[in-house]
Amino acid sequence: MKQKEKFIPDWSEKAPEKGSYRSIFKMGAPDRFKHPSEPWFDMLKEAFGMHNSDFEKKVHEGRDPVSITLETGLSQTQLEWFFELLGPKNVAIDPFNRVKYSHGQTMLEAMELRRGTVSHVAWAVVHPRNKGDVREIVSYCHDNKIPIYAYGGGSSVTLGVRPVCGGIMLAMGTHMNRVLEVNEQNQTARVQPGCMGPVYEETLNYSMRRFGTRRNYTGGHFPQSFEMSTVGGWIAALGSGQASTYYGDACDLVLSQEYVTPTGSFRTLDYPSAATGPKVNDMMKGSEGTFGILVGVTMKIFRYMPGNRRRFSFMFPSWDAAVNASREISQGEFGMPAVFRVSDAEETEVGLKLYNFSGTILDRAANLLKYKPMKRCLCMGTIEGERGFVKNANRKIFRICLKNGALPLGSLPVKRWEKTRYSEPYMRDDLQDYGIVIDTLETSIGWDKFQTLHNAVVTFIKSRPQTICMSHASHIYPQGANLYFIFILKTDDVEEYRRFQSGVLDAILENGGSMTHHHGVGKMIAPWLESHLGGVQMEVLRALKRHFDPNNIMNPGGQLGLD
Amino acid sequence: MKQKEKFIPDWSEKAPEKGSYRSIFKMGAPDRFKHPSEPWFDMLKEAFGMHNSDFEKKVHEGRDPVSITLETGLSQTQLEWFFELLGPKNVAIDPFNRVKYSHGQTMLEAMELRRGTVSHVAWAVVHPRNKGDVREIVSYCHDNKIPIYAYGGGSSVTLGVRPVCGGIMLAMGTHMNRVLEVNEQNQTARVQPGCMGPVYEETLNYSMRRFGTRRNYTGGHFPQSFEMSTVGGWIAALGSGQASTYYGDACDLVLSQEYVTPTGSFRTLDYPSAATGPKVNDMMKGSEGTFGILVGVTMKIFRYMPGNRRRFSFMFPSWDAAVNASREISQGEFGMPAVFRVSDAEETEVGLKLYNFSGTILDRAANLLKYKPMKRCLCMGTIEGERGFVKNANRKIFRICLKNGALPLGSLPVKRWEKTRYSEPYMRDDLQDYGIVIDTLETSIGWDKFQTLHNAVVTFIKSRPQTICMSHASHIYPQGANLYFIFILKTDDVEEYRRFQSGVLDAILENGGSMTHHHGVGKMIAPWLESHLGGVQMEVLRALKRHFDPNNIMNPGGQLGLD
Repeated sequence: MKQKEKFIPDWSEKAPEKGSYRSIFKMGAPDRFKHPSEPWFDMLKEAFGMHNSDFEKKVHEGRDPVSITLETGLSQTQLEWFFELLGPKNVAIDPFNRVKYSHGQTMLEAMELRRGTVSHVAWAVVHPRNKGDVREIVSYCHDNKIPIYAYGGGSSVTLGVRPVCGGIMLAMGTHMNRVLEVNEQNQTARVQPGCMGPVYEETLNYSMRRFGTRRNYTGGHFPQSFEMSTVGGWIAALGSGQASTYYGDACDLVLSQEYVTPTGSFRTLDYPSAATGPKVNDMMKGSEGTFGILVGVTMKIFRYMPGNRRRFSFMFPSWDAAVNASREISQGEFGMPAVFRVSDAEETEVGLKLYNFSGTILDRAANLLKYKPMKRCLCMGTIEGERGFVKNANRKIFRICLKNGALPLGSLPVKRWEKTRYSEPYMRDDLQDYGIVIDTLETSIGWDKFQTLHNAVVTFIKSRPQTICMSHASHIYPQGANLYFIFILKTDDVEEYRRFQSGVLDAILENGGSMTHHHGVGKMIAPWLESHLGGVQMEVLRALKRHFDPNNIMNPGGQLGLD
Repeated sequence: MKQKEKFIPDWSEKAPEKGSYRSIFKMGAPDRFKHPSEPWFDMLKEAFGMHNSDFEKKVHEGRDPVSITLETGLSQTQLEWFFELLGPKNVAIDPFNRVKYSHGQTMLEAMELRRGTVSHVAWAVVHPRNKGDVREIVSYCHDNKIPIYAYGGGSSVTLGVRPVCGGIMLAMGTHMNRVLEVNEQNQTARVQPGCMGPVYEETLNYSMRRFGTRRNYTGGHFPQSFEMSTVGGWIAALGSGQASTYYGDACDLVLSQEYVTPTGSFRTLDYPSAATGPKVNDMMKGSEGTFGILVGVTMKIFRYMPGNRRRFSFMFPSWDAAVNASREISQGEFGMPAVFRVSDAEETEVGLKLYNFSGTILDRAANLLKYKPMKRCLCMGTIEGERGFVKNANRKIFRICLKNGALPLGSLPVKRWEKTRYSEPYMRDDLQDYGIVIDTLETSIGWDKFQTLHNAVVTFIKSRPQTICMSHASHIYPQGANLYFIFILKTDDVEEYRRFQSGVLDAILENGGSMTHHHGVGKMIAPWLESHLGGVQMEVLRALKRHFDPNNIMNPGGQLGLD
C-alpha cells in the first residue's frame, strides 16, 4: 500500500533530442525542468479520475526529428538576394530552423508540434545584423510582396509569431540583441529589440562595471516569460511584468522607438513629455509587427536597490476581502507595491499544494481560525523604491490587509515564489506528456465589474466537466485590475480544446473584460477584437496599417484582425 | 521728489465695455485685476528706459465695440438648417459673438484685437446641446464641406481656436459642461468636454454631497489657465497642470474618450490597462480638433486630501545646484512632489520684486550668505497624497536640497504663490495698455541637454535689446523636465514681435527642445512641427487625418501642420 502511494511518474529529465519537435516546444532551457509536486500529482489524478497506471506511458512526446518536406514561396533569385545581403550563415532554409522560428509558445502550437503537425512555416529564416539590413530587407520585400514576420524570444501565447502567409522570418535576437548605451543623466537605456530579458536586466544591474555609471540600474520588467522574451517583444505585444504595478507596464517604460516600415523609417523623439500632437511613439506600441520592424528603443530605467525590497504575504478569509484590500491599496496614494498578486480560493489551495503546505500543522492551525480551505485567499507581493517610501507603503499595506481580516504570513512565501516563478510554466511539458493541458487566458477590468467577470469566467470554465480553474489578479491599478485564469483539463482532442478556449474568450468578452491585459492579441485573439473595440476603432487601425504597409507584407494573415 | 516716486500708473480697474474688443481679449473675469507691484513697475521703467510720463497715456485699449462688417460663407439654406436643429438661441451670427468665439489668448490675438484687427472669424457660433447635436452637425458639415472649429474655454496660446477657413465654431462650454457621474469604485469621473476647470474641481471636491460618494475627490489638474479652460481642451491640446508632476499630465488622466468624427462616432473602452493593439484612445489625445469632436471623457480622479499637503521652498545658491537637486528629486523613487517649480536667477529676482521681498532685511541677510542676487534660484513646491508618503517625500526633498546648498524658506512663499497663481497672467493687460508685451514659450528636454537648451534660449532672448527674460522648470520627470520662458519687451510692431517669437522657437528647435511641453501646437507652432518630428511621422498624422476627416473640415487651415 505504502509503496503504491509513492509512485512518481517518470517526469522527463531528458533534454529534447537535437532537431526534434520537442526541442522547439519545450519551455525554457533544454536541460531545465520543473515537475509537479506530490500533492499536485494527487490533485491531477483526483480531478481527472486518473490512476497511477495512466501515468505510465507518455503520449505525443514529439521526440522525432523535424524532417518534413516544405514548400517555399521564394524564387531562386529572391533567395540569392538574401544570401547576398546577409551571407549564408544568416539565412536558414532547412526544415528544422524554418519550423523552429515559425512557432511561439501558444498551447495550440505545442499540441500541434507534439503530433508532428506543422500548419504554417516561413520560407526562410533570416538573421539581420543591424538596422541597415532590416531597411534593405523591408524595402526588398515590399517591392517583391514577400511577407515579413519577426521573431523575438518566441514566447508569444497568442499565435503572434505564426507565419500564416509564409514569407521570411526575421530572427531579431541573433545579432540585434545588445544594450547599446546607458544615459545616466536621463535614466534611460538604448536597447536593440532582440535583447533578451535576462541580458537586459543583468546589463543594467552591472551598469557601473559595463558602462562606468555611478549607479547600477534595473529595467523593472519581469514577465513570466522573462527568460525567453525580448525587449522588442515586450513593446510589440504590450506586455506587463510581475513588478509592473510599481514600474509600469511595457508601454509605460518606452521613451522612444525606431522603426523600419515599408513606407519609411523613423525614430521618435526622446522627451519626458511633450504636447506636439498625437504621438506616433504611442501608435506603434502594441502594433505586433503589423506596421513595421522595431529596430531600436530607448527605455526608462530605475535605480537598482534590491536591498530596499520588502516582501509581504497575507491570508484573507475570503476573495471579497482580498479584492477589497487590493482596491484600497491601489487607491491609497502611498505609492504602489511592485509585485502584487492575490489568488482566488481555488488557486490558493492549488498553490498551497504546490508548496507542500496543505496538511501541515500550519495549515491545520489556519483552518482552525477563519481561514478555511476553498474560502481563504493568498496575497503576496513586494515593495521597491527608496527605503522610507518602502517602509511607509509596507506599513499601510499591512494596515489595510489587517483591516480586511487578513492573517500576515511574512516574507517566506514570497521568497519561495521568487525562486520558482519563471520555471513554473515548465510543468506544462510534464503534464502534456500524459495528455493533460494547462493553459491560461487573461483580461483586465474596472473594479466595479471585477467580481462579476471573475465569477462568470470561472463558472464557464468549471462548467466543463473535470476542469480545474484557478485565477489571480497580478496587476492592480487605481481604476481596476487584471484577471489571470489558469485552467487544467485532460483532452487529446485539439479541436475540442480550441472550442473550449473560444468559449472562455466569449465569456470574457460578454462580461466586459478586455481582450487581453498583457498577452497581446496575435492571431488567436484577433477574431474577438472587432466585437471588442467596435468597427469604427478597427477602421482606424486598418487606416494606419494601409499607411505603413500598403502591400500588406508585415505580419499578414490575421494579426490584430487587420486583414 | 518723494511725490514723484509714488507715481502709480492708472492701471485699469474698469471692466471692459460690453461688446468691446477688450471684453474679448481681457484675461479672466471682467471685474478682476492684478496689477504690477511697485518694484515691478520700477523694473519695467529701468529695463525699457521708460519714465513715469510714458505711463500716463494708454495705447490700443480696444474699448471700441466690435462692429465690423463680416462676410459669411454659409448659404441661407445652411444657416436655416442650424437654426432648425438647435433653435435660434443656440446659433449666433452677430459680429461680437463671431469675433469673441474666434479668439483664444495668444498674445498675437490680443495685439490684433487691441487694434481692431480681425484676421479670421467664424461664420456662425453654434452651441450644441448634447452629443446628438454634435453628430448631426459633423455629418451635415461633412456633406456640405463646412469647416468646424471647437471652442472650449478659449485659453489657447497657440492660435488653436483661430478659424482660418471660416466655418462654424462649436461652443462646447454652453451646454455640454457637466460632470455626469463619479464612479467611486473605479475612481473615475465621466465628464462633458465643455466642463470648466473650476466646475470640474469643485464638483469633485464636493462629490459626497453631489453624488453621495463616501469620499471627496480631486481631478489633480491645475493649469495656469484653470479658470478659463475646459476638461476637453486639456486633452485636445495635451495640457499639464501645476500639480502634474504628481498627478500626471492631462494625457495620463484620460481613461477613455468619446468622439464624433466625419468618418464615425466611437467611445474608447474604460480599462486600467489592456494589450489590445495600438490604442485609439492615445491617438486622439492631442489631436486638437483635427480628427473629430470630443463629446465625452472618463477621467481618473484622486482622493481629495488637502489636509495632507505640505509646502516647501528653498533658495539655491545657483541654477546648477537647483537643477541638480531637481533631477535628484525626480529620480529618487520616493514619489514625486505635486507642484514643483524652480526659477532661474532672473526669474528669482523678478519674483522677489513681485512679492516685495527685494531690499528687505531678509533679502539683505540672504545676500550676506551665499545667496547672491542674479545667482540665487528659488524653488518651491507641494507634496500631496497619503500622510506618511507626504512626510517621507518631504524629508527626502529637504535632504536633497540641503545637500545641494539650499536655504530652506518654509511654506510661506508657496502660500503666497498659491493665492495669486491664476491671476498673475492678468497683468498682461496692464502692461499692454502701455505698449509692453509679456509672453511665454515653453518646451521639454532630457536632463542631459537641459542646461544647454536653457542657456541657448535665454541668450537668444536677451540678444534682443531691452528684453527681460526669465524662466523656470515646473514639471519634472525622471527623464527630464520642461522649461518655461517668459519674456517682456516693449514694442508696438506686431510684425517685429512675430519675428522675434519665431527666433525663440528656432532656438528651441535647434537646441533639441520639444515644440512644446504643454501649450499644444495650434496654428502658431505648426510651421515648426515637420522639422521637429520629421516628414515620416508627419505623414502618419496626415494619414490619420485623411482617415477621420477626408473632406478636411475639422479645424482646417494649418492646425498641427496637417494641411
